Amino acid sequence: GYGQLPRSVHGLDGAPEWPALRAMLPPLQGLRLVDLGCGFGWFCRWARTQGALSVLGLDVSERMLDRAHSLTSDAAITYTRADLEVLALPEAAFDFAYSSLALHYIENLPGLLNTVHRALLPGSSLVFSVEHPIFMASRQAGWVTDAQGRKTWPVDSYQMEGPRSTHWFTDGVVKQHRMLGTLLNMLVRTGFCIQHVEEWAPSPEQVLAQPALAQERERPMMLLVRAQR
Amino acid sequence: GYGQLPRSVHGLDGAPEWPALRAMLPPLQGLRLVDLGCGFGWFCRWARTQGALSVLGLDVSERMLDRAHSLTSDAAITYTRADLEVLALPEAAFDFAYSSLALHYIENLPGLLNTVHRALLPGSSLVFSVEHPIFMASRQAGWVTDAQGRKTWPVDSYQMEGPRSTHWFTDGVVKQHRMLGTLLNMLVRTGFCIQHVEEWAPSPEQVLAQPALAQERERPMMLLVRAQR
Repeated sequence: GYGQLPRSVHGLDGAPEWPALRAMLPPLQGLRLVDLGCGFGWFCRWARTQGALSVLGLDVSERMLDRAHSLTSDAAITYTRADLEVLALPEAAFDFAYSSLALHYIENLPGLLNTVHRALLPGSSLVFSVEHPIFMASRQAGWVTDAQGRKTWPVDSYQMEGPRSTHWFTDGVVKQHRMLGTLLNMLVRTGFCIQHVEEWAPSPEQVLAQPALAQERERPMMLLVRAQR
Repeated sequence: GYGQLPRSVHGLDGAPEWPALRAMLPPLQGLRLVDLGCGFGWFCRWARTQGALSVLGLDVSERMLDRAHSLTSDAAITYTRADLEVLALPEAAFDFAYSSLALHYIENLPGLLNTVHRALLPGSSLVFSVEHPIFMASRQAGWVTDAQGRKTWPVDSYQMEGPRSTHWFTDGVVKQHRMLGTLLNMLVRTGFCIQHVEEWAPSPEQVLAQPALAQERERPMMLLVRAQR
């Protein structure tokens, strides 16, 4: 299950996109952070090692928050159960918002982005990762290997936005497929300025250390975005 | 050949993405325009019908410019042969820059964008279309049809940026594959603010009128961008 994923066991260092995501963060010293979909709290705790003043970790899963609590002893980190579909946050109360692989589950993403925008102070930023729309679009997502053993990733249904059901550990996990353009335009309409868009790929060093990552150079799997309020 | 394409014969109305691109334009009344890769000059002439003050159409092809001249009788439109790889433009001389399906041929795109940025007045914008990186990436770009007759578009080599050779009317046309993120970050680094990113798809009306367009809903083929200086 989810708890056995490298990123669940080893935290941030188990996530191959983490170095790229970390490079997109502002200096966290003295900032008040909110983490949307904090899971086991790995980022919340790391942010504190970087000097964050306070961290609010939000997740809908009680089970994950229980684990986050058990891994944390730091009064500056607060974990709160919250459904990001109907999130309320105090206005102008945070200096930075972060989200790792959570926003592609959210149906009411315009509402959530609007809440986050109002919760951030002007000039502060939002950094997030989501599954790349090209990774998520197809009815039959999965590698196709040709006669020469070369892998291609099939894309179809890209323009048909909406729910995608997967069988990720448990049946019936529903993700929301949005085109990349739709996501970026949503940020712009909310009032964010797009600062960086990264279609993550493993570095040559990462591929050397973990050859299975090589296929991630064939198609974009994750999308990392920094936007400024 | 190129001259027989619907968009060559019928101009803007022969290009299915034109309604979407047109909707992204600012009001052209009174603006001084530059068209990067103007081809037969269809956009230059249309812009004048919308009240543009002057239009500079640039293209590297003498043959296309000859045809553009023969189709135009308007002293406010100037056609000039120019290689966009080494373009020079006067500073702060234009109120709008436009480019249709030309920028994906340019190797020195950072240089061109920098030139365009300096040639535009503050607050003015650049609207362009390019082939979508997902359309261009694969070594063996082309539809794959499964046993059920459903089409998918294979993606591979996405992260391997650089030249792509195609056999488009003449052999050896070289396009430059860049990831979508790379293109957007290049705009941001140049000083542009990203305002709209559209992965063009035909409207239901267009598919009804021209059923062959339906497949364009399966994968992104064209990318339309508006950025502000």
